[in-house]
Amino acid sequence: MGAKTKTRGQESLGGERRYDKAGIPERDYLTKSYKTVRDFSLVLSAPLEIEDYVIQSMPDTSPTKWHLAHTSWFFETFVLSKAIKEYKSPSPQYAYLFNSYYIQAGERYLRPKRGLISRPTVRETLDYRRHVDEHMVRFMTGASEREWKELSPSIEIGIHHEQQHQELIVTDIKHVFSENPLRPVYSKGAARKGAPAASSNEWISFDGGIYTLGHGGNGFGYDNEYPLHKVYLDPFRINARLVTNRDYMEFMEDGGYENAALWLSEGWAKIQSSGWNAPFYWERDGDRWRYFTLSGMRDVDPEEPVCHVSYFEADAFARWAGARLPTEAEWEVAASGVPVEGNFVEERAFHPVPAARASGEGPLMQTYGDVWEWTQSAYTSYPGFKTLPGALGEYNGKFMCNQFVLRGGSCATSETHIRKTYRNFFPPDARWQFMGIRLASDDV
Amino acid sequence: MGAKTKTRGQESLGGERRYDKAGIPERDYLTKSYKTVRDFSLVLSAPLEIEDYVIQSMPDTSPTKWHLAHTSWFFETFVLSKAIKEYKSPSPQYAYLFNSYYIQAGERYLRPKRGLISRPTVRETLDYRRHVDEHMVRFMTGASEREWKELSPSIEIGIHHEQQHQELIVTDIKHVFSENPLRPVYSKGAARKGAPAASSNEWISFDGGIYTLGHGGNGFGYDNEYPLHKVYLDPFRINARLVTNRDYMEFMEDGGYENAALWLSEGWAKIQSSGWNAPFYWERDGDRWRYFTLSGMRDVDPEEPVCHVSYFEADAFARWAGARLPTEAEWEVAASGVPVEGNFVEERAFHPVPAARASGEGPLMQTYGDVWEWTQSAYTSYPGFKTLPGALGEYNGKFMCNQFVLRGGSCATSETHIRKTYRNFFPPDARWQFMGIRLASDDV
Amino acid sequence: MGAKTKTRGQESLGGERRYDKAGIPERDYLTKSYKTVRDFSLVLSAPLEIEDYVIQSMPDTSPTKWHLAHTSWFFETFVLSKAIKEYKSPSPQYAYLFNSYYIQAGERYLRPKRGLISRPTVRETLDYRRHVDEHMVRFMTGASEREWKELSPSIEIGIHHEQQHQELIVTDIKHVFSENPLRPVYSKGAARKGAPAASSNEWISFDGGIYTLGHGGNGFGYDNEYPLHKVYLDPFRINARLVTNRDYMEFMEDGGYENAALWLSEGWAKIQSSGWNAPFYWERDGDRWRYFTLSGMRDVDPEEPVCHVSYFEADAFARWAGARLPTEAEWEVAASGVPVEGNFVEERAFHPVPAARASGEGPLMQTYGDVWEWTQSAYTSYPGFKTLPGALGEYNGKFMCNQFVLRGGSCATSETHIRKTYRNFFPPDARWQFMGIRLASDDV
Amino acid sequence: MGAKTKTRGQESLGGERRYDKAGIPERDYLTKSYKTVRDFSLVLSAPLEIEDYVIQSMPDTSPTKWHLAHTSWFFETFVLSKAIKEYKSPSPQYAYLFNSYYIQAGERYLRPKRGLISRPTVRETLDYRRHVDEHMVRFMTGASEREWKELSPSIEIGIHHEQQHQELIVTDIKHVFSENPLRPVYSKGAARKGAPAASSNEWISFDGGIYTLGHGGNGFGYDNEYPLHKVYLDPFRINARLVTNRDYMEFMEDGGYENAALWLSEGWAKIQSSGWNAPFYWERDGDRWRYFTLSGMRDVDPEEPVCHVSYFEADAFARWAGARLPTEAEWEVAASGVPVEGNFVEERAFHPVPAARASGEGPLMQTYGDVWEWTQSAYTSYPGFKTLPGALGEYNGKFMCNQFVLRGGSCATSETHIRKTYRNFFPPDARWQFMGIRLASDDV
Repeated sequence: MGAKTKTRGQESLGGERRYDKAGIPERDYLTKSYKTVRDFSLVLSAPLEIEDYVIQSMPDTSPTKWHLAHTSWFFETFVLSKAIKEYKSPSPQYAYLFNSYYIQAGERYLRPKRGLISRPTVRETLDYRRHVDEHMVRFMTGASEREWKELSPSIEIGIHHEQQHQELIVTDIKHVFSENPLRPVYSKGAARKGAPAASSNEWISFDGGIYTLGHGGNGFGYDNEYPLHKVYLDPFRINARLVTNRDYMEFMEDGGYENAALWLSEGWAKIQSSGWNAPFYWERDGDRWRYFTLSGMRDVDPEEPVCHVSYFEADAFARWAGARLPTEAEWEVAASGVPVEGNFVEERAFHPVPAARASGEGPLMQTYGDVWEWTQSAYTSYPGFKTLPGALGEYNGKFMCNQFVLRGGSCATSETHIRKTYRNFFPPDARWQFMGIRLASDDV
Repeated sequence: MGAKTKTRGQESLGGERRYDKAGIPERDYLTKSYKTVRDFSLVLSAPLEIEDYVIQSMPDTSPTKWHLAHTSWFFETFVLSKAIKEYKSPSPQYAYLFNSYYIQAGERYLRPKRGLISRPTVRETLDYRRHVDEHMVRFMTGASEREWKELSPSIEIGIHHEQQHQELIVTDIKHVFSENPLRPVYSKGAARKGAPAASSNEWISFDGGIYTLGHGGNGFGYDNEYPLHKVYLDPFRINARLVTNRDYMEFMEDGGYENAALWLSEGWAKIQSSGWNAPFYWERDGDRWRYFTLSGMRDVDPEEPVCHVSYFEADAFARWAGARLPTEAEWEVAASGVPVEGNFVEERAFHPVPAARASGEGPLMQTYGDVWEWTQSAYTSYPGFKTLPGALGEYNGKFMCNQFVLRGGSCATSETHIRKTYRNFFPPDARWQFMGIRLASDDV
Repeated sequence: MGAKTKTRGQESLGGERRYDKAGIPERDYLTKSYKTVRDFSLVLSAPLEIEDYVIQSMPDTSPTKWHLAHTSWFFETFVLSKAIKEYKSPSPQYAYLFNSYYIQAGERYLRPKRGLISRPTVRETLDYRRHVDEHMVRFMTGASEREWKELSPSIEIGIHHEQQHQELIVTDIKHVFSENPLRPVYSKGAARKGAPAASSNEWISFDGGIYTLGHGGNGFGYDNEYPLHKVYLDPFRINARLVTNRDYMEFMEDGGYENAALWLSEGWAKIQSSGWNAPFYWERDGDRWRYFTLSGMRDVDPEEPVCHVSYFEADAFARWAGARLPTEAEWEVAASGVPVEGNFVEERAFHPVPAARASGEGPLMQTYGDVWEWTQSAYTSYPGFKTLPGALGEYNGKFMCNQFVLRGGSCATSETHIRKTYRNFFPPDARWQFMGIRLASDDV
Repeated sequence: MGAKTKTRGQESLGGERRYDKAGIPERDYLTKSYKTVRDFSLVLSAPLEIEDYVIQSMPDTSPTKWHLAHTSWFFETFVLSKAIKEYKSPSPQYAYLFNSYYIQAGERYLRPKRGLISRPTVRETLDYRRHVDEHMVRFMTGASEREWKELSPSIEIGIHHEQQHQELIVTDIKHVFSENPLRPVYSKGAARKGAPAASSNEWISFDGGIYTLGHGGNGFGYDNEYPLHKVYLDPFRINARLVTNRDYMEFMEDGGYENAALWLSEGWAKIQSSGWNAPFYWERDGDRWRYFTLSGMRDVDPEEPVCHVSYFEADAFARWAGARLPTEAEWEVAASGVPVEGNFVEERAFHPVPAARASGEGPLMQTYGDVWEWTQSAYTSYPGFKTLPGALGEYNGKFMCNQFVLRGGSCATSETHIRKTYRNFFPPDARWQFMGIRLASDDV
């Protein structure tokens, strides 16, 4: 992994040794991380034409321009406006335009209207980023110890927040391009195709008992990963590999989408009303399936992990396969000791790859990267959960309703962003993220 | 409780001694239960005019006539059509009209259109019930041992199923009447008003550790209550009483409905779009609050448990109060040993009553009856959960998505229907059931 | 026609000799008309079960009970409350429940919620009618000359208003019954079937020039028929008969519903989004077409006039046939001198009949009765149009937008209600009325 | 007007002398017109940033880029593909992307999704225009007489078609900018403010009788203006000036928006559901009204013609004023002899101006330009109307439903585009065009 890590220059962003004894991030480290992550947003935007930055293709997605501005607004609001007495935003209205959902941080422009905002232009947005970056670096360099102690945690959150939006830049532009009949290509390099992987279907067993899960406090974690807590688990087994397109097409050919008995009631209603009969981005072309990728239209590769399936589809597939989805506790137990390696956004594949090429050393293959793995766990608070004070308290807790947890990151996630305890969450009908399936079952 | 029980004549419907060693229900007992429960549906319908039976006031509710027919269809489909070789339904189309959601049991008339069905008439529907009852009693009396063993479990489910619809008859007609500006009265007797109860605000603590929860197999239970399973709990405390209207009005007066920080994101969106600023059925009348009850419009009684609140409101109230909702595991632990007593539908109050009049002997007051208590637990399967085979397998499992668990029964629930392990579930924005709040918190 | 007229007892309700020189209706005549028309509402309701009275099957339709109450409310509001100083309604809330759209007459219960009103019951509604009738007859008998002069015009409008609602009772219950899979039968007698009519396809020519059209003031007319006015017409021809089911099936078989070039843009969008491929109430059964009638399901009779088509379909059919729809001015010119005879509601066929059986003596067949004939004229005011003062001014004028005029009455219209100048109007996508097609073309 | 005309260089585009005896457009004239009009689209787009070209702010509007491409597609489809045997489009998919509604010209990309198309880029779109222009000019120069005779009518339509889209470029970008809280300025020069005009309120009377209206065949006209036809009119009067903001604010202050009696039923429903209480683009700022213009936010100028009102508002205002809207026949009679002069898009005011500055010499002021004038005439066909053959037949006829006619052009219309017989049409709730009010009444 050495060479790869070097080109990325982002190693150990979440690393555990970068804090002083009081848990305050080390200054040089954080400043370097800030620059690296901020630069990477521009790297991801580089392939786009100006017109591409503007478009919101559905209410769930946001224009690239908005992501670039919003992440800057975050630092302006939660750091600069507190750090610098006379800090002046280039435009006071940006606070209104680029607030996302922080109700306590002031009024917001309506989310579904983000695609109506041609101004500020891309150039002005990049100027805005530079303005924020200059002030941020000046502050990080010159802050007193007291100031650093007070505001460095918000800077750290801001860096991780930007990485989340980098993932959205990738998934959202995929959706934008897919709507265009010209099917633009984001990155030619992504179309890699190797020899078919030897299919393994190995189950790994875990004992029942009390496990201690959640974030222990070393290194960065979001509020929803805290605190450490005990969970009792029955014995279970988990599959060593992800469900592949080959597996999933078998389900489809077996009438999976026509068999109500396999589906949650709400899922059945959804596939009826939406006409779903395959993963998102798949298109029937005569007798074969093709899908839209960030490298354009391609034949479905049967060896790849299946991707862009909803919770409803993951759950129905598992039932069809005589198995079930893991709980997030089971996933976390199974991921213990597995190194954080895999097909991340730094690879610039922008697409999941077959297991043979991406499997780790551990017992579980493709634990990290490639596709987010749906768990059967509704997204809720851990025992003893506490939100952060102020507007940042809205970060995670207020979404604990009608969402399911996904684990492990995807090919659009930064390697330095993901960790074992990381909890992603989406409503059960979401499909535009790189979402896939790993099976589990009771061990009896 | 003696006298009360006698007038009800339904004691121990869920009792544990009414089964043989193989877990098969005792025949006389089940036959008697069948008759008692079937009769009670007619008792509940008795106050209605023919016109009232027909109306569906929103997609969630069903016409009384539909409830009466559907519960009969259930016995016809899952018992009679299997028990009697040449069984003939009075109308084969009833199977289509009165199937609710059992996809494997055949096609269904669309749920939101149930209020368009003037025929069969009420008289024909009652004839249909009698037809089913005659065949059922004949079968129960004359079935061979083999037949009894095979079909008595479905009869038992059918009885409990009918009790569920009895609760809906009450809640749905309340909704129907509330839509009518004439505000019809269902039952005059319900308007009881005692002396104000002494307000208690006692917290009861429970130890952490591993608990065994779920249904152990003695007596009837739905599939979703099974199997027995272990859960690790941190120490917690739970409030001895329910949240009252007085408590809730304090929350309202403190700006609870205007403070976004108290609400789940989806809840905040809901109260904005729907204009909610009080529990369902409440109306502002000058400087006081009134509500619609099955006995007509009344002043809000501050001593009563608050009722007709959504999960969103229960959750926001708890946050405002510096507490949280209990998990369903905590509720079940806390309810252990509390007798199943309280203000049930047999009381014919059709409304929750203040604690002083209805509290039990145990540590928790109003554990059962009065109002269903929202828990913070998303409705999901227990470890090792298995569905029933065939169409009855659709009973519970397929709803395990975007719903929250409620516990303890309400003033519209039958005393013989509820038990400690009983799991009710509704989406977080449902309010038309008798739903209320009990607080919990970490014990630290 | 003699015998028929006698059984109806409604002759010459709109007759011209029943007014004094000042245009005030003659008292005995109007009193008799009142009784006859009011009774006929009960005749039309007689075949219904109580449950049938309650249902509103779509926002456009109203429950029978509502029609019966609303027509009584009309007399209460526009006559009794003005005529009788201390007039007391049985329930003051009826004014709110049974107002339809007269904004100036006070607040109204929402139209799409009319099906939620189980109370007043049918019995109470009939009591209400009797109460109104008693007071009305007493007033009509005892009114002073001054009172009569002031209020008799409103009574006359009320009678014609009730006849309009009688037509709706028929069309709305047809829609209600059609939604029920049991397909209830309203009237067995309607299923008449004669020998096939000799198909005629005769065009009748009319000269161009200035015509004087509209209502001249003799006999009753609605405000929208006034005043007499001049219209210049080019020479035109009009077809002697209505378009039949045979004609229309030819259009269907020729791909009429798949050929965008035949359709108005809005019509094409409508048939796409709604999946229309035949007239309303038609169902494909193997290789034949059947339709729902008030006598139950029947094979489509090719000789009958096509019915239950929208303006969009009428317009597309005409284009396909190389013709066009008549303007309302052309229709009125062509209908001059044609006697008001035909298949009206008094026949109790409740369905259009083939031409041979119903054709008049005049040049045009089936000018009146059977089906309303779509014209290509948008519903608008005649030059010099004036609305009535007060709430009755809302009767017609405020609907002059996005509606098309239909002429001639239908099998659900009273013979005594229709006349040459009568203007009915509906939006172009309405189909549940008995609506059909007559062709016209330029005469060149 | 001389100097102004010169700078425009577009004089007499619709002039009558530019045709040969067979009605074929003169070649040099048409070629010059083509170039002038095509260039003007670029002039109108010049103030925009690239990001502005992409946005569709509501289903009724289209991105500027789409307008630029669609007008080129028009020439490609209806001229080049027929004129040049081996004509090759730069991208065959443009035919799919930039077809608007010509069903017979092939499949179309969905209208409400036009804002999702970031590619082709603006640069590629301009390349596309150049490609089309080069081929068009080459064809126009080199076409044989036969070719010219066949295709020059389509070229002429294409030029007028482009002018229609030029008007939409202006109105649509106004809507786009209005949605942006930064309120971008399209053209600084538009903010002109003169001395208050002397208010005149003069009525002009016209005799009744038969008039011959419609297009006589000299010069260009759309199919819907044909043929010449006779209309009988009663005597009428029409107001010499447009309704001003001052007049309209009087209506508003008099409770116009709260008085149901003034409104069409559908209009009243619309203002209730949409919360309209002023013309579109108006905003209340303390005790004054401001509006968004293409020059930014400005105080409402009471002397200007009121603008951005729907038919519903125009109709209600007229009723309040004791008048009515003119029919389109009346308007055309009144406009006879009035020269085509006024505040057109060539003025680059992009906003209506007070009468004093723009009134013509004729009896009616501001007959042309400033604002489109709503008539009370539903948009329908003239007697003897015929559509063009082929896909161009879809140009006008298929919209003859639920729309009202507007006359006279606006400040966004080209002077060379408008004429006395020109019929514009929009649904009664449209407001984003420059639409205003002129009063008429019966002359009695």
